Amino acid sequence: MTEAPWRATVLTLFPDMFPGPLGLSLAGDALARSVWSLEARDIRDHGRGRHRAVDDTPAGGGAGMVLRADVLAEAIDAASPADDPRPRLLMSPRGRPLDQARVRALAAGPGVLVVCGRFEGVDERVIAGRALEEVSIGDYVLSGGELGALVLMDACVRLLPGVMGKEASGSEESFENGLLEYPHYTRPREWEGREIPQILLSGDHGKIAKWRRAEAEKLTRERRPDLLPKR
Amino acid sequence: MTEAPWRATVLTLFPDMFPGPLGLSLAGDALARSVWSLEARDIRDHGRGRHRAVDDTPAGGGAGMVLRADVLAEAIDAASPADDPRPRLLMSPRGRPLDQARVRALAAGPGVLVVCGRFEGVDERVIAGRALEEVSIGDYVLSGGELGALVLMDACVRLLPGVMGKEASGSEESFENGLLEYPHYTRPREWEGREIPQILLSGDHGKIAKWRRAEAEKLTRERRPDLLPKR
Repeated sequence: MTEAPWRATVLTLFPDMFPGPLGLSLAGDALARSVWSLEARDIRDHGRGRHRAVDDTPAGGGAGMVLRADVLAEAIDAASPADDPRPRLLMSPRGRPLDQARVRALAAGPGVLVVCGRFEGVDERVIAGRALEEVSIGDYVLSGGELGALVLMDACVRLLPGVMGKEASGSEESFENGLLEYPHYTRPREWEGREIPQILLSGDHGKIAKWRRAEAEKLTRERRPDLLPKR
Repeated sequence: MTEAPWRATVLTLFPDMFPGPLGLSLAGDALARSVWSLEARDIRDHGRGRHRAVDDTPAGGGAGMVLRADVLAEAIDAASPADDPRPRLLMSPRGRPLDQARVRALAAGPGVLVVCGRFEGVDERVIAGRALEEVSIGDYVLSGGELGALVLMDACVRLLPGVMGKEASGSEESFENGLLEYPHYTRPREWEGREIPQILLSGDHGKIAKWRRAEAEKLTRERRPDLLPKR
């Protein structure tokens, strides 16, 4: 068996969550065709003592438990050789917000090693000690990093060569040109008294492209002025 | 059986993706205890013709397929009575970015109806025709709304009463006070030459709280100045 060109390794306390939703649809087809590979490794295999403890109480007090630096470092070292060219990501609400430019860069690389935190967080020292790059999928808090890892992998995998087919460029999608996507319509021509905009039925491709661009700009101005270039 | 207090209904072309990761860990325990309920409904049940078609080519041309307004409206109407008090969300990169304040508001309500798009998008008319509120989990493109729905539900469910136990207030988490979270440490006291900051071992709770606050502010200034209040 040849190695998949894009390799994802996930470190988690819940390996059964993988591939999960990524075992179906677009990402699942690509997984079955070895366009990418996914290995989920259990951090608990490196736990301490009879109960394979992976966490402990926070130094200085407070609620929740903290993932131990030594346990996590061992799990990372076992999953990834020193010359592993893949970026090491830690899913965390404190991280740099994921955006489509970063997704494109990750999809163009050899793959990812993704560490999923749980509990209150991970011991800060392992972040520096293993050069983990914190990545956030949004400004909200999840029960662990697993859903973040799934989101990140799905976003990357759909951009891999041969996954999306004709749409592979994705060049008219949201964010690809700094704009939200224009509105879509399909049959039926009239639905509950609402019509497809006349221009889309005109057959004039120049006018249609211009209308779509204007709609995308209007939508972005209204909803996400933060995405527009600063003047 | 009594009805779960917080009810999620998901409309999708991939009902097998649910509960997926939410069947395990915190959300899975809460699901088993009926703290919340999850119903995944197949949009294809309302498809047209022998092949139960749900999509068609975009009016005006272009790549991809568009989910039909009539099919989706039927699926929504079948899943949700006219007096359903739950917000109707459409996961979409064009939507309002999800944040922790919105998560809190949704978790405090009766639940959610979540529509997952696939393909190029959904016919714009159903968004207005069924008063769908577009919600985005981040500035990147996924292969469908399913992962967004899972993220949104996970964020809400962990805040439901009785799910997180002692940490239920979540008041020291990222975003809850407009700041990223301070760094965590746990045993061992020294790891690979890296020590736990002395102050956390001092036992002086006043000083520890002050240090944590200062660290959280520093981290937020460095990484996410956009989260800080404008002066």
